[in-house]
Amino acid sequence: MRKITGGVTAAKGFRSACCAAGIKYQGRKDMAMIACDVPCAVAGTFTRNLVKAAPVTWDMGIVYGEKTAQAVVVNAGIANAATGPKGMQLCEETAAFTGKALGIPARSVLLGSTGVIGPNIPLDRITAGVAMMKESLSGTLEAGTAASKAIMTTDTVNKEFAVEFELPAASGEGTVTVRLGGMSKGSGMIHPNMCTMLGYITTDCAIDQALLQKALSRVVPDTFNMITVDGDTSTNDTLLLFADGLAGNQPIQAEGPEYEAFCEALFSVCHDLAVTMAGDGEGATHLMEVHVIHADTKENACALAKSVAGSSLVKAMVYGRDANCGRILCALGYAGPVFDPAQVEVFLEGENDRICFYTDGFIQPFDEEKALALLSEKAVRFTCDMHMGEAEATAWGCDLTYDYVKINGDYRS
Amino acid sequence: MRKITGGVTAAKGFRSACCAAGIKYQGRKDMAMIACDVPCAVAGTFTRNLVKAAPVTWDMGIVYGEKTAQAVVVNAGIANAATGPKGMQLCEETAAFTGKALGIPARSVLLGSTGVIGPNIPLDRITAGVAMMKESLSGTLEAGTAASKAIMTTDTVNKEFAVEFELPAASGEGTVTVRLGGMSKGSGMIHPNMCTMLGYITTDCAIDQALLQKALSRVVPDTFNMITVDGDTSTNDTLLLFADGLAGNQPIQAEGPEYEAFCEALFSVCHDLAVTMAGDGEGATHLMEVHVIHADTKENACALAKSVAGSSLVKAMVYGRDANCGRILCALGYAGPVFDPAQVEVFLEGENDRICFYTDGFIQPFDEEKALALLSEKAVRFTCDMHMGEAEATAWGCDLTYDYVKINGDYRS
Repeated sequence: MRKITGGVTAAKGFRSACCAAGIKYQGRKDMAMIACDVPCAVAGTFTRNLVKAAPVTWDMGIVYGEKTAQAVVVNAGIANAATGPKGMQLCEETAAFTGKALGIPARSVLLGSTGVIGPNIPLDRITAGVAMMKESLSGTLEAGTAASKAIMTTDTVNKEFAVEFELPAASGEGTVTVRLGGMSKGSGMIHPNMCTMLGYITTDCAIDQALLQKALSRVVPDTFNMITVDGDTSTNDTLLLFADGLAGNQPIQAEGPEYEAFCEALFSVCHDLAVTMAGDGEGATHLMEVHVIHADTKENACALAKSVAGSSLVKAMVYGRDANCGRILCALGYAGPVFDPAQVEVFLEGENDRICFYTDGFIQPFDEEKALALLSEKAVRFTCDMHMGEAEATAWGCDLTYDYVKINGDYRS
Repeated sequence: MRKITGGVTAAKGFRSACCAAGIKYQGRKDMAMIACDVPCAVAGTFTRNLVKAAPVTWDMGIVYGEKTAQAVVVNAGIANAATGPKGMQLCEETAAFTGKALGIPARSVLLGSTGVIGPNIPLDRITAGVAMMKESLSGTLEAGTAASKAIMTTDTVNKEFAVEFELPAASGEGTVTVRLGGMSKGSGMIHPNMCTMLGYITTDCAIDQALLQKALSRVVPDTFNMITVDGDTSTNDTLLLFADGLAGNQPIQAEGPEYEAFCEALFSVCHDLAVTMAGDGEGATHLMEVHVIHADTKENACALAKSVAGSSLVKAMVYGRDANCGRILCALGYAGPVFDPAQVEVFLEGENDRICFYTDGFIQPFDEEKALALLSEKAVRFTCDMHMGEAEATAWGCDLTYDYVKINGDYRS
């Protein structure tokens, strides 16, 4: 498997477009569309928030129903959440219009929205946007990058990653190159419960739809579900994975080495998107990585890592580059899993250096200057060794800054 | 029941003192002591954080063991948490020294610490402080107020409340006046799981120890456990309730009207302390009150109210006085309890006015100016009507501000 340049247009058969539809933002692109030349198997994971935005409900119907789709239309600025029957009607009309424009069934058009909860999206702007984008669909890498920028809200960088890998050819002779790429947006209202963001991944791999969903469900718990920015699980979280089968590989119809290669590629792109989102959390100046090792169970390792990554006090301490390491121990202590505090070790890790903060039941003396240097790195890494078993997990978050408060104290205007 | 001026010295038999022991803070008082003329029945609730500070472990031993005590010694600045066996040794030595000074058993001396996790407290400063305080113990209201100030850390106001009420006299003729008063501190690392603070309540009521504990355990879930500042459950949370029986009432030995009167008084003081702590959260400019009504169960009402009060996005919106009300709905949605979003109503409440934000499944148009006026009140109140049943709960929190980040980005120094 190799990382390559690209995003949603890296794989064969996928084209994308974007436009300035003027839905809420002015003077920037705020809509994106991905369309495939052929119908795709589609898999998805969605927010577990009880209050689901209309496009989430729409997508779930298709992903769990038809399990096939050919396009997705996304807008930034307004979430189409808490919009009642009117919100669902907008989804139906958007899909119908897009289907007609692309010559595909309405129910093969998926939808995504992100932004303010409450307001209605004006249908005429959406349809005008779709009409514009239909004309500029392109399979170039630049088109994919432009789409990844158009779906941003408070994101400061666009997120796209792609990989390629080899699979046995359908012809039975030699191998073919399969590609998988994706884009995502997410900056606030980010907390692991599904994925808390919009993410779109495309691949030209030929793979059975049930395995496609299985692979996505296997990869999400260790990637998107391990990031947190502010503990708020959004109403709009959606991750979609489209597979059009155009790579010409022998279709993956059972678990085995080919399925594992596919999962590895999917993990790579999901991991890179997730970690980039965590580091680009609203107002963030640092990525924070919390690695829990030697926990008794995987579930407990996840809970412990997420608790530290989500602690307001740990996040504020990382912003202040203040080695107030008792807060890490405190966040482990209220995470839920049972452990013996006297057995735990906590480390601050650098590229070439580490400091032991806590061992043998008490906070250790440490070199403050060295700690300041490690806390000044762009990525701040903590390792918590539970000394209980063999399970491990990594959670990603970011620091809590003045700018997070600023952004969220006045988001609507 | 009447509210009266006072705190821990309001009830007969209790004296307090404080001093500048120089444990971490300079130029201010940082230790307090409460002592009673006679042994007291004692009840307590403690942090559920697995990582418990040494004084918490010490107090739990006595409250669940002897169930009687006569004094408590508290310091601010260093938490004596994550200090291993050395921390426990300090507790033993502090209690032994204090017991000797006051002429009471070491195991009738309870302890409390708040501040930075990790460092050790120098024993000599503690003992010098106790020796000083022993000389200035006083039953005046001023002594109680001074003690409530000495235990502050990042608190901006001291917290003390007291009430008095009538109970049948032990003599069998008429009634006597019983008093109950308390003090608490708490500003950061505040999240409902026990009480997340230090709190000390004294009463001269004669009451059976089992009922004393029962009353405390009944009142805490609706008061201290319903406040949140930052979601971080501290290692040091301790709430102690001392009853010396000197009021001369007929001892309360069974549930009944007298027990109910006692619970009402205890609730009043715990409620006022808790709400004041929420409003004095680190950096806070607003108290936030979230009232959930017509929930299906009490447990669900609590979970829903706490989820809204704890949401970083709701907190930031209250700071920014931005009526981004979809965030409230979002926080209800990820709280856990199952409900139908289309049935919920959300209101912003003022002293004499209210705005309906959400009903019939969508965000309602509202008067922005009126919303700004209501969000500018010192206490911002939301009501969430679930339309499911008869259970209700109220949670208290505060807004998320630049100053929270500032305080916690550089707390140690």
